[in-house]
Amino acid sequence: MIEKIHHIGIAVHSLDAALKFYRDTLGLHVHAQDTVQDQGVKAALLTIGRSEIELLEPLSPESAVGKFLARKGEGLHHICFQTPDVDAELEGLKAKGVELVDQKPRRGLAGMICFLHPKAARGVLVELATPVP
Amino acid sequence: MIEKIHHIGIAVHSLDAALKFYRDTLGLHVHAQDTVQDQGVKAALLTIGRSEIELLEPLSPESAVGKFLARKGEGLHHICFQTPDVDAELEGLKAKGVELVDQKPRRGLAGMICFLHPKAARGVLVELATPVP
Repeated sequence: MIEKIHHIGIAVHSLDAALKFYRDTLGLHVHAQDTVQDQGVKAALLTIGRSEIELLEPLSPESAVGKFLARKGEGLHHICFQTPDVDAELEGLKAKGVELVDQKPRRGLAGMICFLHPKAARGVLVELATPVP
Repeated sequence: MIEKIHHIGIAVHSLDAALKFYRDTLGLHVHAQDTVQDQGVKAALLTIGRSEIELLEPLSPESAVGKFLARKGEGLHHICFQTPDVDAELEGLKAKGVELVDQKPRRGLAGMICFLHPKAARGVLVELATPVP
């Protein structure tokens, strides 16, 4: 069961430059900013209704987001759907033969998360997340 | 003022193939399906929380979405933010020197809408919309 859009991930070269538009020009509120070493990104999370915008700046060109920027340039990177039970959701998708990036949920910025393969979702990198209290 | 994510637009070669994943596999509800001649697309709108997924299949390779598919392939196309007053929002952005696609709001699938230029938003095509009752 998918409850809502948890967030939309946007790959950018510079968080500071991106915040000039999303925070200063559009007026969205930054509720968190963090460096996630194992994902190789600096992230800023902006509130938009009951969802978030996640701005992602790579820590190195070899990170997943760094490679995305080199290949495609700045722009929409992934979309994250919130589900109440990411384990059950992932098992259900596995049973349906959906192509996955992660075989098991793992800890991420949004809680317990996993990524499906873009091939499964018409070229869209889909993340599933169950927030952790 | 931005209230929420109104929808996320995804460019696809075939609505039918895309619905197999977003409707049948993920279980999202299709609440509308429509052909919009002047935008050159067939669209399916799926409910997700208080937002929507908008699947877009081009009517021809010369349409904006057709050109996007030829250039980038299937995937995330644009993001639409809901605002209570798209006219005032657009005037405010103009005054701040934001690069625009539309100089005036026009009628679209989501109500009165306008597009900002991807250059303004770090490579993201941003739509603003005020639903019309």
